[in-house]
Amino acid sequence: MTSPASPGPAGTVRPGGRTARVREAVREATLAELAEKGFEGLTVEGVARRSGVHKTTVYRRWGSVEGLAADALDLAGGEPWPVPDTGTVEGDLRELTRLVLTGFADPGTGPVSTAFISAATRNQVVAKALHAFFAARHRQSAPIVTRAVARGELPEGTDAADVIRTAVAPLYYRLFVSGEPVDEAVADRVAAAALAAARAGAFAAPGG
Amino acid sequence: MTSPASPGPAGTVRPGGRTARVREAVREATLAELAEKGFEGLTVEGVARRSGVHKTTVYRRWGSVEGLAADALDLAGGEPWPVPDTGTVEGDLRELTRLVLTGFADPGTGPVSTAFISAATRNQVVAKALHAFFAARHRQSAPIVTRAVARGELPEGTDAADVIRTAVAPLYYRLFVSGEPVDEAVADRVAAAALAAARAGAFAAPGG
Repeated sequence: MTSPASPGPAGTVRPGGRTARVREAVREATLAELAEKGFEGLTVEGVARRSGVHKTTVYRRWGSVEGLAADALDLAGGEPWPVPDTGTVEGDLRELTRLVLTGFADPGTGPVSTAFISAATRNQVVAKALHAFFAARHRQSAPIVTRAVARGELPEGTDAADVIRTAVAPLYYRLFVSGEPVDEAVADRVAAAALAAARAGAFAAPGG
Repeated sequence: MTSPASPGPAGTVRPGGRTARVREAVREATLAELAEKGFEGLTVEGVARRSGVHKTTVYRRWGSVEGLAADALDLAGGEPWPVPDTGTVEGDLRELTRLVLTGFADPGTGPVSTAFISAATRNQVVAKALHAFFAARHRQSAPIVTRAVARGELPEGTDAADVIRTAVAPLYYRLFVSGEPVDEAVADRVAAAALAAARAGAFAAPGG
């Protein structure tokens, strides 16, 4: 989960040579421009200037601002992501919702995630990349639930993505729909509610 | 809850004379323009033409497109809203999530609600009006929970807004964040999950 703008683990060395370095430089510049100016302020020229990659190269390989935004999301979704593993499903879900909270509170990543979600409401290319990013995060978070089932903390057949969605959705709802504050107490409370529903079997397959 | 673009009860006669009629004509034109063109395509000129209200009047009373959008939301939030009352909290929550579903599936109201939520990510005036609209809907939906507590279906001290948010948030998350499909089965499932969490006491005040 976390925000689409979260960086990979510190110190990760990316494989690949010049092509990968150019792609990474362009991605970093895209995220920085989005953080400062939003999707409306994103331009190929601005990304080229900031990344030091020639404008004609950026145009040839990314085509447009929507291509830049989509590629940044593709890279983020493909990164290894350290799924919470505290030893209990209660601790894992609490850590998950706190990661969403801190991702949006961070002045570097919060505005970028907001820019992606905002742009996706108006741009189909960005929307497709954003949805693929969240599908990846749902898959990456699934061990929280499969481990809990194996430990006997949750019923057999509990749908992992349903638990994950239920835990984080109220935070996104407060941030983007009702405009209500989010803090650690709220994050803990929504994690606990998702856990209570899961324990009661609300996400177990029919007959499961 | 439902969408911010939902009309009031059919056949409602609004009080007030010419001023109220002008306001209503401008609101209807604003919603129709938003449905067709989104917030980016909303113009004072377009609303004036469509409503038959003179452009200088629209400018003088609403000031700008953000003023038009905010006033449409103010009117929607102030309308009486038929809160589900099926006799059980299970039925009420299911009806509530289905209202959100049908509001977004409706080609008249769905695009308008999407336009409001999208605009609110970029415009503080629209955001403030949208948040007031949802605060009103949370208050209007509270009887679903207070009646359930009175009937002994939910624990004493259950927070009404928490139940409502938990029921509807996964639908907004699918629509605006993860881009996953919503249908009646999903609406029923998220309503049941919120109910399971509420029954387990996840939304009861500490010690309540």
